[in-house]
Amino acid sequence: MKAIVKRIGHKGVFLKDIDFMENSGITVKTLYTGVCGTDREIANDMLPFIRAENGDELIIGHEAIGTVEDPGDSYLFKKGDLVVPMVRRPGKCQLCQIGHQDYCIDGDFVEAGIRGKNGFMRERFRENEKFLLKVEDKSIEEIGVLTEPTKNVMKIMETFRFLSSRIPWYCKDSTLSCKNLYIFGTGSEALLISFVFSTLGFNIFLVNRHPISDKIQSIIDSVGANFLDSSTQIYENKLSEYRPDVIIDAVGSSEILRKSVEKINNNGIIILFGTSGQLMEKNQDITGYIVDKNLTIAGSVDGSKENYREAIEFITSNKNRFPFRDLITGIGSPESIDKITKKDRDEIKYIIKW
Amino acid sequence: MKAIVKRIGHKGVFLKDIDFMENSGITVKTLYTGVCGTDREIANDMLPFIRAENGDELIIGHEAIGTVEDPGDSYLFKKGDLVVPMVRRPGKCQLCQIGHQDYCIDGDFVEAGIRGKNGFMRERFRENEKFLLKVEDKSIEEIGVLTEPTKNVMKIMETFRFLSSRIPWYCKDSTLSCKNLYIFGTGSEALLISFVFSTLGFNIFLVNRHPISDKIQSIIDSVGANFLDSSTQIYENKLSEYRPDVIIDAVGSSEILRKSVEKINNNGIIILFGTSGQLMEKNQDITGYIVDKNLTIAGSVDGSKENYREAIEFITSNKNRFPFRDLITGIGSPESIDKITKKDRDEIKYIIKW
Amino acid sequence: MKAIVKRIGHKGVFLKDIDFMENSGITVKTLYTGVCGTDREIANDMLPFIRAENGDELIIGHEAIGTVEDPGDSYLFKKGDLVVPMVRRPGKCQLCQIGHQDYCIDGDFVEAGIRGKNGFMRERFRENEKFLLKVEDKSIEEIGVLTEPTKNVMKIMETFRFLSSRIPWYCKDSTLSCKNLYIFGTGSEALLISFVFSTLGFNIFLVNRHPISDKIQSIIDSVGANFLDSSTQIYENKLSEYRPDVIIDAVGSSEILRKSVEKINNNGIIILFGTSGQLMEKNQDITGYIVDKNLTIAGSVDGSKENYREAIEFITSNKNRFPFRDLITGIGSPESIDKITKKDRDEIKYIIKW
Amino acid sequence: MKAIVKRIGHKGVFLKDIDFMENSGITVKTLYTGVCGTDREIANDMLPFIRAENGDELIIGHEAIGTVEDPGDSYLFKKGDLVVPMVRRPGKCQLCQIGHQDYCIDGDFVEAGIRGKNGFMRERFRENEKFLLKVEDKSIEEIGVLTEPTKNVMKIMETFRFLSSRIPWYCKDSTLSCKNLYIFGTGSEALLISFVFSTLGFNIFLVNRHPISDKIQSIIDSVGANFLDSSTQIYENKLSEYRPDVIIDAVGSSEILRKSVEKINNNGIIILFGTSGQLMEKNQDITGYIVDKNLTIAGSVDGSKENYREAIEFITSNKNRFPFRDLITGIGSPESIDKITKKDRDEIKYIIKW
Repeated sequence: MKAIVKRIGHKGVFLKDIDFMENSGITVKTLYTGVCGTDREIANDMLPFIRAENGDELIIGHEAIGTVEDPGDSYLFKKGDLVVPMVRRPGKCQLCQIGHQDYCIDGDFVEAGIRGKNGFMRERFRENEKFLLKVEDKSIEEIGVLTEPTKNVMKIMETFRFLSSRIPWYCKDSTLSCKNLYIFGTGSEALLISFVFSTLGFNIFLVNRHPISDKIQSIIDSVGANFLDSSTQIYENKLSEYRPDVIIDAVGSSEILRKSVEKINNNGIIILFGTSGQLMEKNQDITGYIVDKNLTIAGSVDGSKENYREAIEFITSNKNRFPFRDLITGIGSPESIDKITKKDRDEIKYIIKW
Repeated sequence: MKAIVKRIGHKGVFLKDIDFMENSGITVKTLYTGVCGTDREIANDMLPFIRAENGDELIIGHEAIGTVEDPGDSYLFKKGDLVVPMVRRPGKCQLCQIGHQDYCIDGDFVEAGIRGKNGFMRERFRENEKFLLKVEDKSIEEIGVLTEPTKNVMKIMETFRFLSSRIPWYCKDSTLSCKNLYIFGTGSEALLISFVFSTLGFNIFLVNRHPISDKIQSIIDSVGANFLDSSTQIYENKLSEYRPDVIIDAVGSSEILRKSVEKINNNGIIILFGTSGQLMEKNQDITGYIVDKNLTIAGSVDGSKENYREAIEFITSNKNRFPFRDLITGIGSPESIDKITKKDRDEIKYIIKW
Repeated sequence: MKAIVKRIGHKGVFLKDIDFMENSGITVKTLYTGVCGTDREIANDMLPFIRAENGDELIIGHEAIGTVEDPGDSYLFKKGDLVVPMVRRPGKCQLCQIGHQDYCIDGDFVEAGIRGKNGFMRERFRENEKFLLKVEDKSIEEIGVLTEPTKNVMKIMETFRFLSSRIPWYCKDSTLSCKNLYIFGTGSEALLISFVFSTLGFNIFLVNRHPISDKIQSIIDSVGANFLDSSTQIYENKLSEYRPDVIIDAVGSSEILRKSVEKINNNGIIILFGTSGQLMEKNQDITGYIVDKNLTIAGSVDGSKENYREAIEFITSNKNRFPFRDLITGIGSPESIDKITKKDRDEIKYIIKW
Repeated sequence: MKAIVKRIGHKGVFLKDIDFMENSGITVKTLYTGVCGTDREIANDMLPFIRAENGDELIIGHEAIGTVEDPGDSYLFKKGDLVVPMVRRPGKCQLCQIGHQDYCIDGDFVEAGIRGKNGFMRERFRENEKFLLKVEDKSIEEIGVLTEPTKNVMKIMETFRFLSSRIPWYCKDSTLSCKNLYIFGTGSEALLISFVFSTLGFNIFLVNRHPISDKIQSIIDSVGANFLDSSTQIYENKLSEYRPDVIIDAVGSSEILRKSVEKINNNGIIILFGTSGQLMEKNQDITGYIVDKNLTIAGSVDGSKENYREAIEFITSNKNRFPFRDLITGIGSPESIDKITKKDRDEIKYIIKW
């Protein structure tokens, strides 16, 4: 069968005819796989921690949805079930043992399509039932491939719920209607964050340092959020008028962190999710702001099985309310290998149909 | 009576003969006032947010202990009671109204001896009973002046308790005996932090970038902690062998934050308390570490009345166990004005006897 | 205009022609009002704490949805907005002042249609904008009358989230799929609880001590839950096979509490919402079970404005997923006064169209 | 060597000459063992769940302190160390695996001196280093035997800290000085609870249904608490004047629970620790109060290793502040077997010197 493969240490990825890689488990026919920044880093040989499961080749792909073709000896799944596989698999540490490989203590885990385990960009894969989640509503097939990126948002939400319990932080009427949430980024993760956090009643601003496409603007409009171009004066004005209370960064820039601690209100919450590694533009003190304002800052990576479940729950409940389908700006075939390497102008999420 | 006064906008502080400044309240005879970094910044005209209560002169001093001379119409206090006054007074915001002016939302508060309210470096002051705490154990008189800096540590502890509940973070036997705490700084606040946190069972390291006096070393020894000089290779070795799980910064350096996120273990906790404003030495990405390791970082400033109460409780219970008295390296008279302006070599805490 | 009125201390309720009761605020045209157990207790003169706003007559009704007819000087609402009014209004205590009249300390609050404030069973009412919530999705009009009972469920959920953070209570894979939730009751509140809690991934059982109608059975089926008749042996068998981990009581029986502490698993959570006052059938010790199993038990009454907002959010997102409409088993006119006094056989929720 | 032994199913306990029971581990010379209600239930053949480790005899005793005689191959302990052994040992469940056998899910644990493991009422025992805690301050030798009962109080404190975070429950000045704590019971556990909780700043009342000895009264006085005899009218008056906000029951009576939910303030917290199995005197509804007042009720049993550590910490810090020594009203020899069977009049805690 066809698979998209990376030879470790070599440039690019390529389509290859392979056999089944696993001897047991539930056989899943892949329907769609999503392509994300990590896949592109792999394709461009820029991800230092990539690791093959066996030999020197790794099947890539970690965002997937498929149907059960043969449940094997599982009684939890049956032929035809729509399923989403998990990316990270637990190691031996204490947190992995209670289902929190997303908080793994010692790094002793594998991640399908990334490190130490073959991924899902192939026609079929076999999987342990523990790492598959059932999607009851079969109508969400295509947008179901967004489960993996959405589970990251669910962990961000879990992190927000925790951080916001530090003090009675909400408005005087118990809601969050007086609070401003700034989301940095306008890519698929940032938009999914805006979908999920719009259900909390915030006043939401998405920020990028350049104008955005009409399509992205209309998605932002549909969740009742606002877009701000941080290269304009309007941004600075809005920032002064609507000072942030919560900032979620989906970009990964230390400069955004620096500005965030400066502009955010007292008792503000900052959640970091992006990892692009951009440096500060100005070397300024940031600790003074964090102290004087009692800021709370947390990183959030990956998500637990519960976060996957919540993601499926969220997509199912809100499939007609938020424009998930509009996030998918391109559907291609496994043969279009170059689509994995480089991102189209105005692409939000590109997926492969198997 | 004598008072130590700052003329706003003018260099230095000076001794002045003044009348009572308040018309009502409990009359307190000042016993001791502590001198801290903020007082020295005021004396050296380096604190931008200093503000007089009336006119252009401010009585300074915010660390104090005294005895009630006249309880006025209070039935909670009586003549002879040993008392500690609070620094920050609530404004009108929602958090101030529930006793959390330490988390004030809008900055609408005053601070005795710092902004908008006369302080305690005077022979007597009058005070609202709401802002006085009784010290039952009269034997702690002198070390009782450490209540104010210790209440900051109590808020740091409150912050630690909160942050450490993000996930089941403790060791497999439920204790913290497998966890390493690094405290940056070796001044009075850092040493008080080591006293308080030693009661949690951590393996503790205090860090400074130069050697320390024998006196400080003996204080560190007495709490069962270790000192590391960060300018040495030993430090780098220890850091690799005993990776930090919790970092508390009492210095206020962005460079310490940068190194902390790099060296700390997964799920690490960083609490920032210092505000010296030192910049990063290297402009490196810090967000990637925060994300990938699920770090949680919080600033902690000031403390609530409950934190003052806890501080008195802690000092009372542990007066014979931790060397509080050794922290007081000098006791002077109000007339020694120059002692407020500059710090003695090897000084830990200098206090004024009234 | 027409209103349904209770004369305090007299039997029954009656239709009366009244004028506007309020001089200012947003004018709302009532669309629907729901009838609940409290209304029936009022109608049958069994609610001891009923209190008129003025004089000796109270307009009843606390579950309502309407449209803004005249926004007055509010700029948050405009003519035509679909709105839900709140029941309980804050008093002066500390928790009321931060929007938590649902946790009022001193009982100094009023409740529309129940104590000290006229309710919504009238053609029009005027309301302070602070106590109105906007429903963006106008298609939920009819089922929007369920917002008030659903906000109770949202507080139960908030209570559950809190209680379940006592220890790492979830299954080894981080989900709740291994946990059994028993809901006592099969009325409208119990069914709404099953809707909301089904989104958490529990294995759910609804329990009553008699058989249920086909309609209720089909509603229970639609959320993937199970019904158990506690008067049968099947119930006892299921209870042994699927021991409860969480119990939510919507009945209000001390006997259910007694049996719950006996049958629930270690570390179990019990949330009490019902208040029918039924006694224990057997006088047995219950404290031993609570201690030995580390049980956590909480009462949950009313809800905050945030809980109303969450209720609207939940109904909007899930209007096509859960059979809210099937809960409304009868729609009558204000003239059908007897419908308020007594419940129809197989009624789930009866509402009045204005 | 001498040991106090129970033959399962037979009346009484007896002194017996035995050999070492364990082949490996740290050899501990027993200094003192405490006698508690559980030991007396065992001696009187009233504890249904007692279980021998081997055969049909069990060495009893679970409150102990001793010195290391031979550390074996442990490098954490050395000859002469003062140590306290743990009672409950983890099974295989998820919570046992993270050090929380006190919250064991499936009951698969053993308890030294109670079920499935020989206890400490013998001259020497061998122990795994994981289940021993070091007491650094050798001066607390005798009162160190109170570590085991004090660790229960530490878990009660942990439970209180958790429950009290449900809402901003503290007084308007952030302290607990406006809150009343009622402790039911005046035995050793109740008195230890009063020691520990007096450090939180509560107004404390200890309650029993009969007068108390002068010794107990003086202990209660020394912590600044009050005693109330619940058989008197004074009690009813005080209860009305100082309504409870927190109730901790060290008796184990459903009647106390019934009255507690009736008398406690809104948002009250009830922690149950006692297990005497006393029934309600009146069969009244209790659920209505729990719901309407948003009460939170939790059982607390046993404690984690961290709770033992906290207990040692508490006793060490407060050995001169609270009258721990006064709790020990009798010290006997292993030969005084009858002292285990029945409690002396006015006994608080009887201990055996080995």
